[in-house]
Amino acid sequence: MSQLYASLFYQEQVTEIFSDRALLSYMIQVEVALAQAQAEVGVIPSTAASAIVEVSQTALAQIDVDALAVATGLAGNIAIPFVKQLTAIVKAQDAEAARYVHWGATSQDILDTACILQCRDALAQVETLLTQCYQTALTQAQTYRSQVMIGRTWLQQGLPITFGHKLARYASAFQRDLARIQAMKSRVFTAQLGGAVGSLASLQDQGSAVVQAFAQQLALSTPVCTWHGERDRIVEIASTLAMITGGLGKMARDWSLLMQTEIAEVFEPTAQGRGGSSTMPHKRNPVAAASVLAAANRVPALMASVYQSMVQEHERSLGGWHAEWLAIPEIFQLCAGALARTLDVLQGMQVNADNMHANLQCTQGLIMAEAVMMALAPHLGRLQAHHLVESACKTAVENGRHLKDVIAAMDDVQQYFSAEQINEIFQPESYLGNIQEQIDAVLMQAKGEAK
Amino acid sequence: MSQLYASLFYQEQVTEIFSDRALLSYMIQVEVALAQAQAEVGVIPSTAASAIVEVSQTALAQIDVDALAVATGLAGNIAIPFVKQLTAIVKAQDAEAARYVHWGATSQDILDTACILQCRDALAQVETLLTQCYQTALTQAQTYRSQVMIGRTWLQQGLPITFGHKLARYASAFQRDLARIQAMKSRVFTAQLGGAVGSLASLQDQGSAVVQAFAQQLALSTPVCTWHGERDRIVEIASTLAMITGGLGKMARDWSLLMQTEIAEVFEPTAQGRGGSSTMPHKRNPVAAASVLAAANRVPALMASVYQSMVQEHERSLGGWHAEWLAIPEIFQLCAGALARTLDVLQGMQVNADNMHANLQCTQGLIMAEAVMMALAPHLGRLQAHHLVESACKTAVENGRHLKDVIAAMDDVQQYFSAEQINEIFQPESYLGNIQEQIDAVLMQAKGEAK
Amino acid sequence: MSQLYASLFYQEQVTEIFSDRALLSYMIQVEVALAQAQAEVGVIPSTAASAIVEVSQTALAQIDVDALAVATGLAGNIAIPFVKQLTAIVKAQDAEAARYVHWGATSQDILDTACILQCRDALAQVETLLTQCYQTALTQAQTYRSQVMIGRTWLQQGLPITFGHKLARYASAFQRDLARIQAMKSRVFTAQLGGAVGSLASLQDQGSAVVQAFAQQLALSTPVCTWHGERDRIVEIASTLAMITGGLGKMARDWSLLMQTEIAEVFEPTAQGRGGSSTMPHKRNPVAAASVLAAANRVPALMASVYQSMVQEHERSLGGWHAEWLAIPEIFQLCAGALARTLDVLQGMQVNADNMHANLQCTQGLIMAEAVMMALAPHLGRLQAHHLVESACKTAVENGRHLKDVIAAMDDVQQYFSAEQINEIFQPESYLGNIQEQIDAVLMQAKGEAK
Amino acid sequence: MSQLYASLFYQEQVTEIFSDRALLSYMIQVEVALAQAQAEVGVIPSTAASAIVEVSQTALAQIDVDALAVATGLAGNIAIPFVKQLTAIVKAQDAEAARYVHWGATSQDILDTACILQCRDALAQVETLLTQCYQTALTQAQTYRSQVMIGRTWLQQGLPITFGHKLARYASAFQRDLARIQAMKSRVFTAQLGGAVGSLASLQDQGSAVVQAFAQQLALSTPVCTWHGERDRIVEIASTLAMITGGLGKMARDWSLLMQTEIAEVFEPTAQGRGGSSTMPHKRNPVAAASVLAAANRVPALMASVYQSMVQEHERSLGGWHAEWLAIPEIFQLCAGALARTLDVLQGMQVNADNMHANLQCTQGLIMAEAVMMALAPHLGRLQAHHLVESACKTAVENGRHLKDVIAAMDDVQQYFSAEQINEIFQPESYLGNIQEQIDAVLMQAKGEAK
Repeated sequence: MSQLYASLFYQEQVTEIFSDRALLSYMIQVEVALAQAQAEVGVIPSTAASAIVEVSQTALAQIDVDALAVATGLAGNIAIPFVKQLTAIVKAQDAEAARYVHWGATSQDILDTACILQCRDALAQVETLLTQCYQTALTQAQTYRSQVMIGRTWLQQGLPITFGHKLARYASAFQRDLARIQAMKSRVFTAQLGGAVGSLASLQDQGSAVVQAFAQQLALSTPVCTWHGERDRIVEIASTLAMITGGLGKMARDWSLLMQTEIAEVFEPTAQGRGGSSTMPHKRNPVAAASVLAAANRVPALMASVYQSMVQEHERSLGGWHAEWLAIPEIFQLCAGALARTLDVLQGMQVNADNMHANLQCTQGLIMAEAVMMALAPHLGRLQAHHLVESACKTAVENGRHLKDVIAAMDDVQQYFSAEQINEIFQPESYLGNIQEQIDAVLMQAKGEAK
Repeated sequence: MSQLYASLFYQEQVTEIFSDRALLSYMIQVEVALAQAQAEVGVIPSTAASAIVEVSQTALAQIDVDALAVATGLAGNIAIPFVKQLTAIVKAQDAEAARYVHWGATSQDILDTACILQCRDALAQVETLLTQCYQTALTQAQTYRSQVMIGRTWLQQGLPITFGHKLARYASAFQRDLARIQAMKSRVFTAQLGGAVGSLASLQDQGSAVVQAFAQQLALSTPVCTWHGERDRIVEIASTLAMITGGLGKMARDWSLLMQTEIAEVFEPTAQGRGGSSTMPHKRNPVAAASVLAAANRVPALMASVYQSMVQEHERSLGGWHAEWLAIPEIFQLCAGALARTLDVLQGMQVNADNMHANLQCTQGLIMAEAVMMALAPHLGRLQAHHLVESACKTAVENGRHLKDVIAAMDDVQQYFSAEQINEIFQPESYLGNIQEQIDAVLMQAKGEAK
Repeated sequence: MSQLYASLFYQEQVTEIFSDRALLSYMIQVEVALAQAQAEVGVIPSTAASAIVEVSQTALAQIDVDALAVATGLAGNIAIPFVKQLTAIVKAQDAEAARYVHWGATSQDILDTACILQCRDALAQVETLLTQCYQTALTQAQTYRSQVMIGRTWLQQGLPITFGHKLARYASAFQRDLARIQAMKSRVFTAQLGGAVGSLASLQDQGSAVVQAFAQQLALSTPVCTWHGERDRIVEIASTLAMITGGLGKMARDWSLLMQTEIAEVFEPTAQGRGGSSTMPHKRNPVAAASVLAAANRVPALMASVYQSMVQEHERSLGGWHAEWLAIPEIFQLCAGALARTLDVLQGMQVNADNMHANLQCTQGLIMAEAVMMALAPHLGRLQAHHLVESACKTAVENGRHLKDVIAAMDDVQQYFSAEQINEIFQPESYLGNIQEQIDAVLMQAKGEAK
Repeated sequence: MSQLYASLFYQEQVTEIFSDRALLSYMIQVEVALAQAQAEVGVIPSTAASAIVEVSQTALAQIDVDALAVATGLAGNIAIPFVKQLTAIVKAQDAEAARYVHWGATSQDILDTACILQCRDALAQVETLLTQCYQTALTQAQTYRSQVMIGRTWLQQGLPITFGHKLARYASAFQRDLARIQAMKSRVFTAQLGGAVGSLASLQDQGSAVVQAFAQQLALSTPVCTWHGERDRIVEIASTLAMITGGLGKMARDWSLLMQTEIAEVFEPTAQGRGGSSTMPHKRNPVAAASVLAAANRVPALMASVYQSMVQEHERSLGGWHAEWLAIPEIFQLCAGALARTLDVLQGMQVNADNMHANLQCTQGLIMAEAVMMALAPHLGRLQAHHLVESACKTAVENGRHLKDVIAAMDDVQQYFSAEQINEIFQPESYLGNIQEQIDAVLMQAKGEAK
């Protein structure tokens, strides 16, 4: 990812977590935890562990990143040359301790555990953003709970809804995403430590004790068995992010459609330098939507790569594991970027109630045909009501008249309804079904959780 | 999917659930539940509901599937012409009742709820197969817990493991997949009923009560709000199936590699007409693996389609929703097919212990270099042990000798070890680390769950 | 693919080409060509070839498809049990000839060559549909070359274009797709015949002669070498179809957006039972667009599967090849279905010129700001013109006035322009740049090709 | 993409072409060409163009990249803030000229044309690498044309081939890829210049002349019409790269399988720090294969994103276009990286003829069963020969004997064949069919092209 595009597609904290420097820092943290765990169990001298811990505090600054980048191409992963450099750095301080750096571990242990730590930190950011989106959607759902607008299906006007209902549905989706993250945590934040083939053979009979102490050091769960070749934890994290991103794509599609010049109901917040055009003063480009939609285009494809990469060979694979290194950071960054942009829009969106009202009028009452039919039915019988409204609609369309006027002029109608009553029937507000109850249910669920 | 390929890629029961006939049957079930719910709440006459229920029992046989197929192309979905036909069928028996068929619902309500019912039934099949795979993997892990074989990383021989460890890792993956399914159920089996735009406006103030009764009729959970445009439930189901399929692909890759003529450690069960060749009598084609790997190639790609299709417009979308109709049944069928084939292989696989033993010898002892180093270290010091083994390896490779012979001939070694002891050190069985404890942990976890 | 969805997503002829029956028929054709080629070269007796040819004419009806479907699951491909059945059918007529059925070939030879034949026939259908789309787009581009409408970017109104320009761009895309198909043909329609590992060893020194005669029989090109494991020809075909489908998706997105109730500029053709709703009489669902967009969602994902499946093992692979069998027919069917629906819309689309005109007015002249600036510049200087128009736009937006009125009231403007001239400047027709020249270029290119 | 992974997955020159700095440099080149073209046509003063040209020579160094990165997030693309900065830079030298920077163009014109220039330069690198791979594969095919090895299908030993045949097949695939690139060039290297909606309205009647001059300046073809929304050119380039990458994945799969410890026929070249392990001295990790396989996993998925992004809205889209910016550079870099690694392996691979020979023996003659049958047939009749060999194979397998010994002991055989003749029949070299002719055909084709 180029630096130029970072502000367009990414989110700062999550991008930082997956930076080269941060990755090296997580790897140092893993090596430190390994040394501490092994000292605790008695596998290595505690003086060696202490030395490794101490040196590691300043090790990051001493890593020669350029040399590392070159060596990675030959070694096939970062960890091999990293361990060499780290060992040399420790050795410069304490030759004896240096012999215990990375003791009994394989490069994949370090990379997998570092990846899990990155995921945990990045997921915390995602969760924070998601919670903010949820809270904002709830608040806005309340604000706009009675703001009537047209509901659209197949890109066609359907019947009225309220903008608050749309927002409540978004809130409910955020709630489910948060529940998924919660449910997932117990399964995925698991340490990896197995040595070359998963047996920790060089630790002899102390392998299991070391794994447990190692996991504890990092506040990760202890794996029941090694998982070098079984990648479902990593994939589950990515899947959850993909579901979130897909949902955000839906919202971005919605608001970009609502920003269309001809519809103009909801707008991204304005900002200096944002989405305008000097020679086309009417334009308000949905810039945030473009970023979110690009993420919602890319993440699904990256998931194909992630699922494919599960097909790993034997105890530790080639190719599939490598592909993860590029896909997981990208998915996290795109998801976080999309969340940040969506939060921004949810918080600052500009709602044009006049245009919502105007658009409800653009079919000249036809959107209320069903409502009229339902109102007439108790008096005329359903079948008769249906025929009458159908015929009225036909007349209205053919003559370019408002359906209300056609209906109001009908004898069968005048018999039962005053002009005022007909007017009332044609109010979109009067045909919203159980929308308020749905909004309430979403708000109540949030309260239930907040307790 | 052609019929010809069904036996190769699919699983019978799940394919049946997604057949055209079954889909229509689920749709009838949904319409019946709707009528019953509405009668219960008092929205429609209970006589009408009774008539709908009764007629529906034989409705499936009366549907003109050919006419339906043609009309679907024009209507844009199956439900519209289906409701027309169902209404006509009811009308032939009870004209009054016919007026209440599909009352207040939109076609997507029927299709989404039918889809959830299909998913529930198909997921039950998947869960059964997965449980059988789990149990079989556990049993086989126990059977082969001490069957030593070489562990392989990057497709290279690494250090010894046992075949039971590999199987325990598979079992552990199945366990996590089962846990995911369990955790997911409470989130995804949710009824859909919202009418044209999600407001159930034509049911006036009885919408919420009808939704609740409707969900109850079908033993589904009641949605907090409509989810026509928020597809995360469907996507979560598919994601879980994709994780399962990816894991199966890993196993199939493993056993197809282990079946290689030059390795020949594990084989798919033999069967009449399976994978043999009359002119190449040595061949045993991994036919099941080919099917599972094909599924593991396809499902990830289908997931890209599924995640993409989350980007839906407004209250009910076009295109994205349509794409789901093809992807979800395919993913289910491929996952179930892959499970059935994997179960077959796990149950009937043929393990060639002799070849496992022979392959452990093919590096002439080099795979035990680390073990030797660890054994010498207490006597020689680690550094000295490392140098000695490194030099011995070099000699062994250059002269084409077995490492054991080179080591045994060294003075420094003879000083501390008898020939018998050296022999012992070179036994792969003696260098398995905590593999037995890992297997135990996997078995214990299963017992914990079985309680 | 369910039968129910066929009319929605597929195209009849192409679906027929990929039906089970047709596949078997192509396989028979391949076996016949093989026997004929081998008789021609003198590898098998010509009496045997004659018998195979004769029996094959009625063989399709004798194939036990159910038994074939069952056996396929065990054999791992269709060809193995197919050859057994075909041999038995021939044997029933001529036991001697039966010994020469499938002589020297491997099952993949038959399946690959049959697949190439299917692709050739299906591509001919695609080419026909594509040519019709091209011709129709050209005709409509001419028809609507002066039909002014607003051009939209980022879903916002931009500057005026003509509908003919949009159609000319579509036509140009179709032209490029046709050129790609033409260019590809010489590379991809190549016979496959290599025997078990590509050496045709059982044909001894007659292999090359047989391959040539075989290819000639089928009017395919002779491969320079076998390509069992190098799948680029198949993939190139699929890639081209995916490009076509993506382009159709763009058009379907466009017309579904133009059909929006609030925009209402272009509509899918009306048909009985198509896209309407009795209780929502204003709705015109873009049914064809939904099908095309579903294809444009699915085909990209299927391509991920196709490209992945290129990673094949050794001389003939497992898994990757299998995955092709499902993906290629689907991609063809979805592409052909999308073409058929797009052709239908291009031919019968309903254009609402009034709404195009009305939508050009909805910014109250702001879309013409740039045009005004360009008109004033020669008199006022560019910079001054820019300031004046910017200020006028601001005034117009703030006071809800038409930009023309604000401009017309300005002294600086009145000095140089009459009211009529100002009126002229605000005509969208007067600000279309080189659109007519572009349309001409597209039309000319078509004429050049037709010569 | 992190810097750390660059040496593992990428290729230096192509990565440089898609760097932020290079992108800005291409954008400057496009703006310069625009100014020159407009001066040529007389749209802007030639003094202005000259000033723009001159200032642009040093403009890159003056761009504030950090500010650009921030502004991009708000503007929605790089070009908008880039043009502002470039204009300011020109203005500092020549205020009058600054007014003509980017005259009449839209940001997408600059980005699309810059993208095409990047693609052209990067494709030249790809073509060079591909040509080198082709030449190397040809040379190696010749070197190893008689090096017998076992052919493998379904990961099982089949019949003998030569290593040269495998390499000739690779060479043939490279040849087809080169042909595709050649054929594609005329279609895809096309300038983009259309202004806001593709009409170049602000250039009035000079649009077409400017487009032509602009394209000429950049040695690109002139578009028949604007293609802001029709992305097939970009997609065709990516498709071709994806086909190449898939083919490389096939080769990497092959050599990583051939490097397996138990097979050990072909190895990646050795290098300091490459793929070894001090504690596992027998390991030779296929590091290059891992990189290539990771590319072959990722590129297919990225293609799903690219094809999806074709579904663009109206005259210029949002989201789809944005997604391209990330996918195209990645695909190019991964393809070039995979080519560079494959070239390295093709050039320096180590072939172990002894192991190829040994592996031909591991079925104890069973792989020659068909050859034996073919040799016996002229004497015994085919049917009798088949029975005899089948029975001999059974005996050989059951008794663990070499098939040759079983066959040699049979009376029917001894009657016609001396021991020496039998020995001859069992030579894999004697059963290679038309492999040498295929290799010749591939070599001849290359000569034909070189003329």
